[in-house]
Amino acid sequence: MSVSPSINVAVIGASGYSGIELLRILLSHPNVRLSAVTSRQNAGKALTEVLPQFAGYPGGASDLVFSSPTIDELVASGVEVAFLALPHGVAAEFAVPLVKAGVRVIDLSADFRLSDPAVYEEFYGQAHPAPDLLASAVYGLPEIYASEIHRAQLIASPGCYPTSILLPLIPLLRSGLIDPSTIVVTSMSGVSGAGRKEAVPLLYAECNESVRPYGLPKHRHLSEIEQELSVSASSPVKITFVPHLVPITQGICTTTTAKLTSRFSDVSQIEGVMKALYRDQPFVRLLGEGGYPDTRHVRQTNFVDIGWHHDERTGRIVLTSAEDNLWKGASGQAVQSLNIVNGWPQTLGLL
Amino acid sequence: MSVSPSINVAVIGASGYSGIELLRILLSHPNVRLSAVTSRQNAGKALTEVLPQFAGYPGGASDLVFSSPTIDELVASGVEVAFLALPHGVAAEFAVPLVKAGVRVIDLSADFRLSDPAVYEEFYGQAHPAPDLLASAVYGLPEIYASEIHRAQLIASPGCYPTSILLPLIPLLRSGLIDPSTIVVTSMSGVSGAGRKEAVPLLYAECNESVRPYGLPKHRHLSEIEQELSVSASSPVKITFVPHLVPITQGICTTTTAKLTSRFSDVSQIEGVMKALYRDQPFVRLLGEGGYPDTRHVRQTNFVDIGWHHDERTGRIVLTSAEDNLWKGASGQAVQSLNIVNGWPQTLGLL
Amino acid sequence: MSVSPSINVAVIGASGYSGIELLRILLSHPNVRLSAVTSRQNAGKALTEVLPQFAGYPGGASDLVFSSPTIDELVASGVEVAFLALPHGVAAEFAVPLVKAGVRVIDLSADFRLSDPAVYEEFYGQAHPAPDLLASAVYGLPEIYASEIHRAQLIASPGCYPTSILLPLIPLLRSGLIDPSTIVVTSMSGVSGAGRKEAVPLLYAECNESVRPYGLPKHRHLSEIEQELSVSASSPVKITFVPHLVPITQGICTTTTAKLTSRFSDVSQIEGVMKALYRDQPFVRLLGEGGYPDTRHVRQTNFVDIGWHHDERTGRIVLTSAEDNLWKGASGQAVQSLNIVNGWPQTLGLL
Amino acid sequence: MSVSPSINVAVIGASGYSGIELLRILLSHPNVRLSAVTSRQNAGKALTEVLPQFAGYPGGASDLVFSSPTIDELVASGVEVAFLALPHGVAAEFAVPLVKAGVRVIDLSADFRLSDPAVYEEFYGQAHPAPDLLASAVYGLPEIYASEIHRAQLIASPGCYPTSILLPLIPLLRSGLIDPSTIVVTSMSGVSGAGRKEAVPLLYAECNESVRPYGLPKHRHLSEIEQELSVSASSPVKITFVPHLVPITQGICTTTTAKLTSRFSDVSQIEGVMKALYRDQPFVRLLGEGGYPDTRHVRQTNFVDIGWHHDERTGRIVLTSAEDNLWKGASGQAVQSLNIVNGWPQTLGLL
Repeated sequence: MSVSPSINVAVIGASGYSGIELLRILLSHPNVRLSAVTSRQNAGKALTEVLPQFAGYPGGASDLVFSSPTIDELVASGVEVAFLALPHGVAAEFAVPLVKAGVRVIDLSADFRLSDPAVYEEFYGQAHPAPDLLASAVYGLPEIYASEIHRAQLIASPGCYPTSILLPLIPLLRSGLIDPSTIVVTSMSGVSGAGRKEAVPLLYAECNESVRPYGLPKHRHLSEIEQELSVSASSPVKITFVPHLVPITQGICTTTTAKLTSRFSDVSQIEGVMKALYRDQPFVRLLGEGGYPDTRHVRQTNFVDIGWHHDERTGRIVLTSAEDNLWKGASGQAVQSLNIVNGWPQTLGLL
Repeated sequence: MSVSPSINVAVIGASGYSGIELLRILLSHPNVRLSAVTSRQNAGKALTEVLPQFAGYPGGASDLVFSSPTIDELVASGVEVAFLALPHGVAAEFAVPLVKAGVRVIDLSADFRLSDPAVYEEFYGQAHPAPDLLASAVYGLPEIYASEIHRAQLIASPGCYPTSILLPLIPLLRSGLIDPSTIVVTSMSGVSGAGRKEAVPLLYAECNESVRPYGLPKHRHLSEIEQELSVSASSPVKITFVPHLVPITQGICTTTTAKLTSRFSDVSQIEGVMKALYRDQPFVRLLGEGGYPDTRHVRQTNFVDIGWHHDERTGRIVLTSAEDNLWKGASGQAVQSLNIVNGWPQTLGLL
Repeated sequence: MSVSPSINVAVIGASGYSGIELLRILLSHPNVRLSAVTSRQNAGKALTEVLPQFAGYPGGASDLVFSSPTIDELVASGVEVAFLALPHGVAAEFAVPLVKAGVRVIDLSADFRLSDPAVYEEFYGQAHPAPDLLASAVYGLPEIYASEIHRAQLIASPGCYPTSILLPLIPLLRSGLIDPSTIVVTSMSGVSGAGRKEAVPLLYAECNESVRPYGLPKHRHLSEIEQELSVSASSPVKITFVPHLVPITQGICTTTTAKLTSRFSDVSQIEGVMKALYRDQPFVRLLGEGGYPDTRHVRQTNFVDIGWHHDERTGRIVLTSAEDNLWKGASGQAVQSLNIVNGWPQTLGLL
Repeated sequence: MSVSPSINVAVIGASGYSGIELLRILLSHPNVRLSAVTSRQNAGKALTEVLPQFAGYPGGASDLVFSSPTIDELVASGVEVAFLALPHGVAAEFAVPLVKAGVRVIDLSADFRLSDPAVYEEFYGQAHPAPDLLASAVYGLPEIYASEIHRAQLIASPGCYPTSILLPLIPLLRSGLIDPSTIVVTSMSGVSGAGRKEAVPLLYAECNESVRPYGLPKHRHLSEIEQELSVSASSPVKITFVPHLVPITQGICTTTTAKLTSRFSDVSQIEGVMKALYRDQPFVRLLGEGGYPDTRHVRQTNFVDIGWHHDERTGRIVLTSAEDNLWKGASGQAVQSLNIVNGWPQTLGLL
């Protein structure tokens, strides 16, 4: 006799791009039963009326209706895991009572990524809405914090830029091969990263044939990037980070450089520390010295591809990485955490 | 009594993207008579058969026929200025006899950009085809070398990446505000920059939804970039340079960072040195501290837009620039040199 | 002794895509002095603050400031021609007093394109705001109504789709070579055609990798298309018209088919009637039997390219055409009318 | 005790866009064991060296090596089903011996789609390479020929345009609701449809901002379209078909119009005949009267979306459809046939 391993999952706030990709993944996930899809704006409408691309999908897509339940109703309905795909600030309003009610929460917003509420206030311009919960929240980067994620009740899924920046840098910082004070990061993000909002600068005719930097010098994601880099370096790290908007829908390409330290003697060391950390990680693909990532190769996947080059002329390492900002940079990574929480293979429903 | 100021101009090798934009500009240039448009491959065909977009254009577009003349024939036809839109190595074959025959040459290839033939060989993988001419060639960056261009018989028009990198950096290096050893440059180029050649990696379906780095660690353009940066810094400069291919047709967006030196005390100094050099330059648009360039704003123009941000947290300056790789990065800049050579307003036919 | 031929021009409502392209053309137009650029929303701001792409342009771009004058103030300022780049309904509010005050008006909206106010109400869902002016308004399609435009005080510049549909069809309808009851038109428009408005369906991430029909079965432009086709056929014409949105910024590609009549005997007749009407028209480029237009070839130009194929298997002619929806489909065409009004060459400032 | 249902599958010629998507689907297909992936050009190279996007995929992707076996070697290796992703003409060379050897063949080329070899010669410009096999080949459109596909040894998978055109039209032709002599079809295809070949017209810089018709008046796909329409109408059908290239990677949007006959009285009849045929088809999504398909909604799926509008003004029906040209238009459909052949759910590995 066997028992179905399926669990009841709710997606809170499913009208943005991350929410849509989250639905796409969860509808096909073999161990997930989508028991609630909430949206204040679309409450009462059929999922496939609002998102016709999901007509004919498995996972009961045709029967799902957007709802707008109270927390009590959500809990009473037997939801075991709630994904929060909400703006920062709003997410905490849901997280607090859900956690209290014993529901496991995977939050895609920034609300619980920072351990220090003062840093939150500095970067997000408002007092932290639930500082008491910060201590128990886990930064949901599976390649680094898998065991913490497995035990956590509140998982703060990382931002899109941070994922593409942290994964290449962490092994090098841990090993002392690079000088943390010399890190310069340039990222190029697809337009979906800016959200599904009515805004002239995100119109097709504004973004097509357009490449432009923005968010200087203190993009919000810097706060979690520097927090995690500092952990890896065992000392405070500050970096220069320049994000750009490029005309693709999905994808982030990140180029990171730093000065090599005296511990560095040969480029094979890079491969050594990368492999030591990521050898068994199903979603990190090491392209090796000389390899180039391409956002097209990771589109609609949970992979992050990492290559590197030694610039002997300047004594710098150049790390290049690519991911899908909506998958490994948001929803895919959140489902990866769901799998870890439940002890399922990390790749379940993602590959 | 007045004499028409028109001069006879030839475009040698007009089948690539730079050549096409050069034709577009020259056909409408009030002081230019296009007396020869050459192409071995298309010799004998009407210009508008090969390039139907030019049907109905002024400048005698409908009567132009691609030819493949000998140098002697070109000279005999009265050509006064020849633009070379040819691959490196091939350009020199034409430049040598044309210069000898007294024709003024504006070369869009890399053949005469480097003063040291050994550097040419290092970066281009072949012996320099005409080292004797190097001493007399002028690096055709009008904002820096206008008076040399005015007198030159052989002008080596700069590459696309170099233009977008040199213009923001030169005033800062000259003034000693930045540490040359800390320069990191990231550029994003439209696909036309890779040329109009039959190659699978340049197909639409390969480039769309794709952002990818390439050319590490020693892109060919580094040679001329570092040559000119070294002149500005009065000492040898080596930089880390990471080019990327992004899905736009035309445009380069460049982001440059460097550590500020002890000479730096206030961000207004940046504006000061920028304005001192570029105040009267019609094609440099200074966006100021906090300004962001956008490739869309310079498309089909000869402008280069430059903004900057002071990253106090890391002591770095971030310079951002945008240009059209085929205009200011190639053909527009070459025509700007033509105007300077003839003592015409720099903007003639370009604005 | 010569007198400057420049005239004083105002652009009323210059914040949309048509308005921006209109400014681009007028700033470089040799005979135009831009004396007013109005926008309620941007009043008081410098033109180049709102539209930084125009910094450094000629035509006094750097000194222009958005204003929001009353009609009286406009008239008092000596404006001779006013372009209206306003939503339908709003345009008429400006047109009525301007016409009354003796200002010549070139209206880019739909308000004065239809001679029958009942048709306006049927297609635009509101009573016509100024039916008394309809009789004196001229449909501003220069290739057809040049002499009327020259004399008109109120010119209703055609819509983007209509221009691309009418020009290929009119010679064939006039000559009786096609059966009007069998016309089927499919058009593909770039996203700028939908306007510069905050709307999720126009976001980059919604339009990229998206091709979709819309506006069936009675797109508003059908009203003026059928009005003009009926004139050409000397009998009421109704057509099936299917517009599509495609991921380009600027451009319309239109494919039109109709059954050939018994008057048709040979495909050379098509070239005959096309050339008879358009031989001397500088902006109509006839690609001939077998020629294919391409939106890329007309981008940022006022050309409309027309090709055709005889489908012997079905007895149909296939007409294909391409234009830039913001130039020949809107602002370029409006300036073409300005040139005609003033007796200048049609191409002045446009080529 | 259970036996694994997996079968041994070979992909012959896997370097083009259809081949790549076929690999993507088959690598994740639960009942498929990819036993051979062949390519003359890449023989000996690891799959993930040539196609790095498949690193980390399931289905043994990391162990696969491109081979170039003889037919005998293929057969000896136990291949049960061979997909042919080869150019027309070449496919038949493999199909003949494979069929003879008892291997089931699913051919993505045009070689066996036409029952009449004379039509093949007319449209493909060469004598049919294996006319004896035509009688036994089945046109692999699963929604129409599922039972024939189940029994077939040689399946000719339909072309991309035909799939998007036939599915909307067949129910209307069978029911006599439209006049076959009035059918006009316009299609817009993504650039991957033109193949992965070194050709200047397919370069990014040629296709971006470009919409253009081509292939008039007798695109090759007309042959199979008209063959199948004639079967549905029980009489010879000829149509006007205008394909266009649009700047998307994957997707076809098709718009079809025809005159309604006297059998038509109400638009609900359209829904009636559509549902009668497609109600239980998992990959046909009927959007209903007023519904609009969007290529973005079917990208990387095997769905075909169909909407329709009644144009009362002209007595025409307008059918609109969208599919992914590489999935439902090629590889997805071929795998759908594989599922039918083996008696598996049609959606296995595809949803």
